[in-house]
Amino acid sequence: MGKKTLHIVKIGGNIINNEVLLNSFLKDFSELEGLKLLVHGGGNKATELASKLGLKPKMINGRRVTDKANLEIVTMVYAGLLNKKITAQLQQYNCNAIGLSGADANCIVAHKRIVKDIDYGFAGDIDLVNSSVINMFLQNELLPVFCAITHDKKGQLLNTNSDTIASEIAIAMSKYFFVELNYVFELKGVLENIENKNSVIPSINFKKYEQLIEYKIISEGMIPKLHNCFNALKEGVSKVKIGNETMIKNTNSICTTLSLK
Amino acid sequence: MGKKTLHIVKIGGNIINNEVLLNSFLKDFSELEGLKLLVHGGGNKATELASKLGLKPKMINGRRVTDKANLEIVTMVYAGLLNKKITAQLQQYNCNAIGLSGADANCIVAHKRIVKDIDYGFAGDIDLVNSSVINMFLQNELLPVFCAITHDKKGQLLNTNSDTIASEIAIAMSKYFFVELNYVFELKGVLENIENKNSVIPSINFKKYEQLIEYKIISEGMIPKLHNCFNALKEGVSKVKIGNETMIKNTNSICTTLSLK
Repeated sequence: MGKKTLHIVKIGGNIINNEVLLNSFLKDFSELEGLKLLVHGGGNKATELASKLGLKPKMINGRRVTDKANLEIVTMVYAGLLNKKITAQLQQYNCNAIGLSGADANCIVAHKRIVKDIDYGFAGDIDLVNSSVINMFLQNELLPVFCAITHDKKGQLLNTNSDTIASEIAIAMSKYFFVELNYVFELKGVLENIENKNSVIPSINFKKYEQLIEYKIISEGMIPKLHNCFNALKEGVSKVKIGNETMIKNTNSICTTLSLK
Repeated sequence: MGKKTLHIVKIGGNIINNEVLLNSFLKDFSELEGLKLLVHGGGNKATELASKLGLKPKMINGRRVTDKANLEIVTMVYAGLLNKKITAQLQQYNCNAIGLSGADANCIVAHKRIVKDIDYGFAGDIDLVNSSVINMFLQNELLPVFCAITHDKKGQLLNTNSDTIASEIAIAMSKYFFVELNYVFELKGVLENIENKNSVIPSINFKKYEQLIEYKIISEGMIPKLHNCFNALKEGVSKVKIGNETMIKNTNSICTTLSLK
């Protein structure tokens, strides 16, 4: 009995922040054939809301520090506004989307990040993805749409990195499917030269990835993203691609394909 | 093949607004045996947030007028903050809760209320409850937790009365279950005398309901609530009770039981 393919797509701020782009992306995504699952980041709406409420975002090493007030805000924006807007739009395109946080059906269990040097507050590191319940949704022809909120199974919601959510779900679902994981971001792919947006590296294997880090060709922001990708490949995900939204519509468009060898 | 019982509980502002009461209610609710489903209202958090953002709530005849900005707020508060907090707390008590809006899995389809004299904005009147998908969740041992947001299947989210959501779900699920619907609110039941909180009317049939309206014994706020209850009974719901949170823990506690005859 051959495994079916499951297409997991993660979208980030550049799409979330632009209503026209989001809508056209969701239309293209809805037309992708076969089983699929969407993970979305937060965009700038949470920061906007925090600022309107007089709260200043606190960032350490590019990661948001989530105090109680900010946790309420990201829960409202990610799990409420964005997740339900995306779900309703996919429903419009006849995709039977179901918006989920990690707390729903206990899909993703995490723990509050342990304080070493830095206290990230209510930031969650993932312990477990409940692949059987996600598979049950897929078998019932539902399209799971995950936001970047998880829980600790002890009543606490946690803010969790959406790239990591996508790779951990991809890994867990590899038990049931050939998983193709697509990270959609603002660039056409991983760039050879950050100044030239067309200098996309078409394929990167693990050896090349280590060289790119060694020669400082890839930027600091790209390293954790690629780390997630290679971790996913090592743990059983079949295919990982990075690029902009055109790769969802046109499988031949330029992007970066990652492989172990 | 006998029908099983499904217990549907609706909670409102008095519980939602009080964290201690909410937590103790959820613990009691988690201990209810058998199949169950929760519907929650919004409480005062949406009004608080709107006010912090400088928006004034607009009410006509006790109903919120939902403009675009207020729809974003209720979506954030009801479908995000409250729904996910409740879900995470039920998970803590080993209830496999799944938080849902009407858009998720296309559970509840509504239409934007038609403008006659008053334009209620993005207020939704329910057309359809998708009982088969809700039944699928229950058969998979999930506990659906509904907030008061629906959608129109054309991409638009809608703010919807939570009492009505509870009764419409109860009616739709009567196809599969003996449904017991409990409205939990701040009083011990429907009062004979509004000045005396202990003057609970233990049972009301349809004839008595009409008399209570005729003699102006029940208040304006109670009439739509009772209307929902009797509508549910007429459309197949087995049992409807109104009372405070103690009726969830103790089935012998004082409350008002409604029946057609």
